[in-house]
Amino acid sequence: MIEGVILAPLKRISVTKGDIFYALKSSDAVYSGFGEAYFSEIHPKEIKGWKRHKRMTLNIIPVNGAIGFVLYDNRPGSSTYGEFEHIVLSRNNNYQRLTVPPGLWMAFYCASNDTAMLMDIIPEPHDPDEADRLDLSAIKYDFI
Amino acid sequence: MIEGVILAPLKRISVTKGDIFYALKSSDAVYSGFGEAYFSEIHPKEIKGWKRHKRMTLNIIPVNGAIGFVLYDNRPGSSTYGEFEHIVLSRNNNYQRLTVPPGLWMAFYCASNDTAMLMDIIPEPHDPDEADRLDLSAIKYDFI
Repeated sequence: MIEGVILAPLKRISVTKGDIFYALKSSDAVYSGFGEAYFSEIHPKEIKGWKRHKRMTLNIIPVNGAIGFVLYDNRPGSSTYGEFEHIVLSRNNNYQRLTVPPGLWMAFYCASNDTAMLMDIIPEPHDPDEADRLDLSAIKYDFI
Repeated sequence: MIEGVILAPLKRISVTKGDIFYALKSSDAVYSGFGEAYFSEIHPKEIKGWKRHKRMTLNIIPVNGAIGFVLYDNRPGSSTYGEFEHIVLSRNNNYQRLTVPPGLWMAFYCASNDTAMLMDIIPEPHDPDEADRLDLSAIKYDFI
């Protein structure tokens, strides 16, 4: 796994009337403060990215469908410099929380036939200047 | 509206690849701290409740389907003592955040043909002793 990235299985409590899904607790080791929670949908065959946060750690939870995450590490001095990581999360098949430290490039795509959705909890309210963006073609990766 | 309950429209940013949905920011007036975020599903024709929190304020966001919330105020001294409130939220038709102060009884039901899901952000990690529960029949309400 790329240095600093944490993947944690999340509890799902089976309830006849409808299940409960854990997402994040303030007592979790990866919790780094609450600034904002938001949802992002991704339609079939679409890819969002590349984006790199300067300060913020992301805590991402799969809500609907399946989402493929691609991380790229070009942090100087990182033990995983130059590496890519590919992770597919889904509420029903792989319900885990993905923690992404600042400094990594990330793109994500819809890995299901229906529109997918993630939740992200970030330690400060969204600020457009806090992230760098690149065209998909700028970092070569064979997404599909 | 029952005293202390706040309903706030939430921004949805239209994006070709998949929309962004606001949920909660630390700068929102209703934000009362982060203890945990979790999801709760509710299957068609099911009702979860009654439940009353002793300390915690809930911040509830509709994620999938439609959810009907019924609030009942039996707080002594409340200006809305004895009143019920019925609110239906849905990501697509009524995307609002429902803030429920402690002391109110709440039940919720699936108001869509498919399983519905809400997200709740609470100011302390879940503690079973922090809430009171009653059978559905204990507070008379004609849900469906």
